[in-house]
Parts: sequence; structure tokens; C-alpha cells
Amino acid sequence: MFDAHPVRRDPFAPLLQSEFAALLRRHDRAGVATHAVPTAGAPQPLTVFDDGRTRINLGTNNYLGLAGDPQVVEAAVGALRQYGTSAAGSRMLNGTTRLHLTLEQELAEHYGTEDAVLTSAGVNANLAVLSTSCAPGDVLLVDAHAHASLHAAAAASRGTVARFTHNSAASLERRLSALAPQAGAVVVVDGVYSMSGEAAPLAAIAGLCRRFGARLVVDEAHGLGVLGERGRGAAEEAGVLDRVDAVTVAFSKSLASVGGAVMTSRAVAEGIRCSSMPYVFSAANDPSAVAAALASLRVLRREPERMQRLRDNGDLLRRVLTECGAAPLPGRGAVIAVPTGEDEVTRVAWAAAHDAGVYTNAVVHPAVPRGKGVLRLAAMATHTEEQLVRAGELVAAAVLASRAPVRDRHVAAMA
Amino acid sequence: MFDAHPVRRDPFAPLLQSEFAALLRRHDRAGVATHAVPTAGAPQPLTVFDDGRTRINLGTNNYLGLAGDPQVVEAAVGALRQYGTSAAGSRMLNGTTRLHLTLEQELAEHYGTEDAVLTSAGVNANLAVLSTSCAPGDVLLVDAHAHASLHAAAAASRGTVARFTHNSAASLERRLSALAPQAGAVVVVDGVYSMSGEAAPLAAIAGLCRRFGARLVVDEAHGLGVLGERGRGAAEEAGVLDRVDAVTVAFSKSLASVGGAVMTSRAVAEGIRCSSMPYVFSAANDPSAVAAALASLRVLRREPERMQRLRDNGDLLRRVLTECGAAPLPGRGAVIAVPTGEDEVTRVAWAAAHDAGVYTNAVVHPAVPRGKGVLRLAAMATHTEEQLVRAGELVAAAVLASRAPVRDRHVAAMA
Repeated sequence: MFDAHPVRRDPFAPLLQSEFAALLRRHDRAGVATHAVPTAGAPQPLTVFDDGRTRINLGTNNYLGLAGDPQVVEAAVGALRQYGTSAAGSRMLNGTTRLHLTLEQELAEHYGTEDAVLTSAGVNANLAVLSTSCAPGDVLLVDAHAHASLHAAAAASRGTVARFTHNSAASLERRLSALAPQAGAVVVVDGVYSMSGEAAPLAAIAGLCRRFGARLVVDEAHGLGVLGERGRGAAEEAGVLDRVDAVTVAFSKSLASVGGAVMTSRAVAEGIRCSSMPYVFSAANDPSAVAAALASLRVLRREPERMQRLRDNGDLLRRVLTECGAAPLPGRGAVIAVPTGEDEVTRVAWAAAHDAGVYTNAVVHPAVPRGKGVLRLAAMATHTEEQLVRAGELVAAAVLASRAPVRDRHVAAMA
Repeated sequence: MFDAHPVRRDPFAPLLQSEFAALLRRHDRAGVATHAVPTAGAPQPLTVFDDGRTRINLGTNNYLGLAGDPQVVEAAVGALRQYGTSAAGSRMLNGTTRLHLTLEQELAEHYGTEDAVLTSAGVNANLAVLSTSCAPGDVLLVDAHAHASLHAAAAASRGTVARFTHNSAASLERRLSALAPQAGAVVVVDGVYSMSGEAAPLAAIAGLCRRFGARLVVDEAHGLGVLGERGRGAAEEAGVLDRVDAVTVAFSKSLASVGGAVMTSRAVAEGIRCSSMPYVFSAANDPSAVAAALASLRVLRREPERMQRLRDNGDLLRRVLTECGAAPLPGRGAVIAVPTGEDEVTRVAWAAAHDAGVYTNAVVHPAVPRGKGVLRLAAMATHTEEQLVRAGELVAAAVLASRAPVRDRHVAAMA
């Protein structure tokens, strides 16, 4: 139908000209679909894929291994039987159940905040708190590598957005020093960066926020259940959790569910509940997802030793990779990034590992700068030592083969 | 911690000064919490509330009654047992399961589009398609009463946003006539308006889009399962579904789940999958929610008579209200708006109905203009005639009593 007015531009043109789509089409033509490879089972250490093969799964955010844990699954089943499959309304109207209130209460208790507000996705927790913050003239200072949802959420506010150099307290300090004296300021960072596994230098950042009177918002999606004595993330690990004004999390990592939350003061929580689009105008989280997150949170609080197993497993995998000649980027915690470089090398390495029976994440431009591709691996608390040693050896072999001269590459990938 | 730099404005001030929060605090002080009243069970025609009472539920979007339907619940249980409680990753990486692909395929089949893309919330379906549309200079023409997520999504695009008068084809035509000849244009409307139940004049709007070469995006969150021979919404009912460039839906209404989808061409779907923040950078829908939406979609396609029961039930409830002197606003479909006017009257009417055993939605400013409050009612396909007659009588009595002079009001509310 769109030919009726040929002089007019197509407003869908930006959607139709995605650079990343073009890349994936090239990969598909090469016979290797590196992305959105379907599974046929839960994201366990051994995962059944839709091609019928079972692979060692190093490419999931199910860090604590709870997404297939029988006690979490049965909690979700119980919620389905009591509350049905949907609350079928906004939290403001009919969508609030006792289950939602309980998860909010236990999240607030865990983080030591006055309140917690659920959202239907982790990205919506960031939208909820940032899009409703800031008057014109206020400034949001966002780490350049912060999660895409933090950048989008900051852009949706009425304040001015400025980026500072990734993980650079010096860059942040320069930005804060340059602010007009009365302008409000919010500093926005990830606690743990999802693709590299790096933690933010939160002691320094919190110190700057105090010194310059700025609010601090930290996305702990990849810190929850991973860092800190009680698993509250990078801010707890750095000893500054009580100086964060709003912590956001996603349930789709350690909490084995879907959804998000903002942990903050009662007053800010009330503001979100009354004025934030992704809370007021979006349906309540489905009861089974709330029950799964609640059951996982209780496991995390009751059995902190699971986090130690996760960290030990991450250390083991790093050691195996290094010993096999594919040293990952420096880091700790669950996420491990093995440099591959050019997109073509990343693709070949991913495919070789996949053929060998290990699922990883191929991270290519634009998720990372050109030539800075990585295979992203994530340890789980439930991987066995044998699985990690075997998978580490196979991934290292795949990465080394992918770095071989181009003429040998396809042979190696097929090996 | 925020006292360290007293000269600086608080960037959280907009959150802390919500007008709606102040209204709800006044309601709470008056001892009547009209919003977020918790339930202890599924949103069925008879719903158990957290205060222990069972009420006739006229305040849910579970239009087809499937959120507590055993076949839908068991489909979700089966998905939990096979796929676990979370796909634990973005659809782009490890979050795609066979279940997600099947729902996308069957949604596309149902709508007769080349493709469908899932998102983790209905609001994120609107964000997914609109935030990535439009180059600078293109224009998004949004109905003034469109859902908050459509306004937010349009504002997040790189185009210019302009509103046209609610449901006015004449206003839209003036806007389209005034466009620069080469500027791209997207027209954005709800198929069915959620608070009033009105349908958009889609035959006229689609005609204007064709004449002026504009794209058309229709949010059928409240049309799916309600309007049209096959339940595809207001565009199907108006006979113009094939002239809509992207249909968005939420699963939290007729499909008894949580999440959303965009039904569109393969090229636009591919663009969303490769460049849209709420798709690329958000976790995949949880398997139980996907299974619930899929099971509900199959029921809807197999048993269209459920929609007839829903429409009959809506007609019955309208008739009872009218006969009892509380005539609703003109409309058809599931949603029925009974005028109450001032917020205080709305509150008293809501509380009287609630005390009498009927749950409704109190819709007050800023969701509607000042003095235009309504009790929002929604019929379900699974309400019995007896429940609807009884509930209609009780709601009418509550509304009439709330309109009594102020001196009688509190007595009436307690009756």
C-alpha cells in the first residue's frame, strides 16, 4: 500500500536499513546463524537445542542455575494454580496480588531500602526511574558503556544527557565539575557490565556523587546474585550500597524469571507508582514470574554458598582458558569475555565451539566497537568441574583455530 | 546522603511531586484505597480479594476469561516443566526457544502478516516499532487519547510528534495536509481506547493514510479477542486490517498472559529484531507466559463463540445499567464507562460498589480530564447472566448514591 504517495519518505526506513540486520543476513548466507539459535529446553549447564543436540551451555544469564531448579519451577506452578496465568491489569487497577506485594517487600528487605517497585521487564525498571526524573536543566551523566536501556531511559527524561568515559572516575569528575551549580545531577552506571563482566568503580563514583551532590542510580542486573557478600551486586561489594539512591535489577539473570525492580526510598517509589508510564500503564508481572523471582530470591538469601560456587566456577573457567592459550579479558564474577576481534573471526570461533558442543554468545559490532568482538561466556553455579574443563578446552581450541590464516579457517571450523 | 550539596536541585523532584500521588494519599487518608487493591486469586468473574471477601469482578482485562482457564494454566505449567522459569537471555542470544518461534508464527498467521515479533510487555511492542521509526523531519501523528505508551514511544523516535484531536478524521486530515511533501508520516492510534471502550474510526483513518502516503500503526491491545469476526480487533471490524502497516498487541488482556507483539512485514520485523532496544537488549518472555498466550490464541481461533458471549455480556451489562438509571457512555465491546464526574464522586461510587461486593476501576484525573471521571467496567465472556444483572444493579445504585448531595454521601457509601 505504500506506493500511493511516492514523493514522501518512508518513515520505516530506519528500521529497514539496520546495519546489524545486514550483518546477520551475511552470516545466514554463510550458513552460520550465530544469533537467536533456538533451544528446546531449560537453560541448564547441559541444554537441549532445537537441532536435537545437547550442548554445554556457556551462554546464559541463569547464573545461579535456578531457572530449571525444581523448587523454583514448583513455586511458579503453584502461583499459576492459585492466581492464574495473568493478573490481567495494571498494578494501579486490578493487577496487584498478595504475591506482588510480597516480592516487593522481600526485595526491599534484601537491599535495605524502604521500598521496591516491580516492573514487567528489567529495561522498564530503568525507564521507570529515569524517564520520570529530572526537570529541564538537570543533567544525567551516563557511563558510555551503560546498558542500552539506561541510555534510552535517560534520553526519555526531561533532563540533558551527557556521557562520561567508561569506568573513568576522572572523566565523571570533569563532567560534575563543569555543571552549573544549581543544576540537578544523576549519575547512571551499570554495577556489572553485561558483555565484559567488568564492575564499575563504585567507591570512587559514590564519593564523587556525595562530593558534588548528585544522585546515583546503579543497574545491578548482572551484579545481583553474583557480587557482594549477600549477592546484592557491585555496590555492596564496593561497600557503598547505602549511598545508591536507586538500584535497578532484572529478574532474568540470577532470579530465574522475567521482570525488573527499583529499590529506593518510599517517596521515590511512590512517585514511580503514580507517574511512571512503564508502571502505571503496563500490565502487572504474571504471577508465575513473580513466584519464580520470589523463590529464587529466597534461595539466594538462604544459600549464599551458591554464589561461592558460581565464583569458583568462573575462576576455574578463566584458568582453563588461559592455560589453553585463549586468555580472557581481566575480570571476575560470572561473565568471561574471550577476545576474538573481527566479526568474521568471532563468527568462525562461535561456530566451531557450537559444532564441538559448546554454546557461547558471539558479541559483534555494534554491541562492541569494530574489531573488539568477543565470545562471551558465563559460568553457572550448577556447572560441574568436568563440564567447565571440557568446555573451556573446546572454546579455546575454537578461538585459536579461528585466528589461523584465512585459508585454513574453514577447515578448522569444520573439524 | 542528599544534603551534601544544598545548592543543587534534586533531580528526583519530578518523581517526588506527583499530583496523582497526592490524590492517592488523600484517598488513603480518607480510609478508601481505590487503587492497587490486592487480590488473592485469579481475575475470574468471582475473585477472591486479599481482605478475604469474594467479589464480582468487573474490573479486569481478562476479557475472554482465559487467565484462570484450566487448559491455559496447564499449558503454562507444561512450559515451566520443559523450559524452566526463564529463558535467561535476550532473544538475540540464548533466549529464543521453539515456543517463542511458534507463538510468533501463529500470531502472524492469525493476522495475515509476514511476521510477528514478541516483546516482554505490550508497552514495549509500541516502543519497539515506534522508537526505531522515523528520521529527523518525519512526523508521527498520534491520537490525543492514545495509550501513554504510544505517546512515549513516539517521543522516543527521531521524528517530530504531533497530536490530532481524538477520533477526529477531520483533525487528522488537516495535520496530513499541512505536512511537508517529502516528510515521512506515521499515524498512530489505539484500535479500542482502554478507558472508554470507543473504537477508532479506522476506515476513515486508513483512507487518509492511503491518500497521503502515511504509514499506519494500530495498537489492538483492547481489540484483540473482542472486535472483528476473527477477533483481530478494530481494524478487522472496519475491514482495513490489510492496510495497517504494524499492529501491536498486549497479551495481558484476551490472551491471558503478559507480553506484547508487533505483527508486520518481514522487513520491518527484521529491523525490530536487529535494532530495537526493547527487543535486542531485553530478556525473552518467560516460557510460561509464552505458553499461556499461545494456548489462549488457539482457544480464540478455535472457539470464536467466546467472543460472541463477551459481546452479549457487554450488551446485557449496558442494558442493566441503563435500566437502573446509570447509563454508560455510548459504546460496544467489553469496556463500559459509567460517568461519575469529579474525583470525589468517583471515589465514593467505587467504594460503595466495592463494599456491596463488586470490583470496578476508578478512573480519575489525570487518566481522564478533570470532572470526567468514570467507573470503568469490563465484561468477561465467562460472567453468568445472574452475576451481570446483580453487579449492574449494585454499580448503578452506588453511582446514583454517589451523586446524592454531599451531606448524604457518606451514609450512602456505608449502606
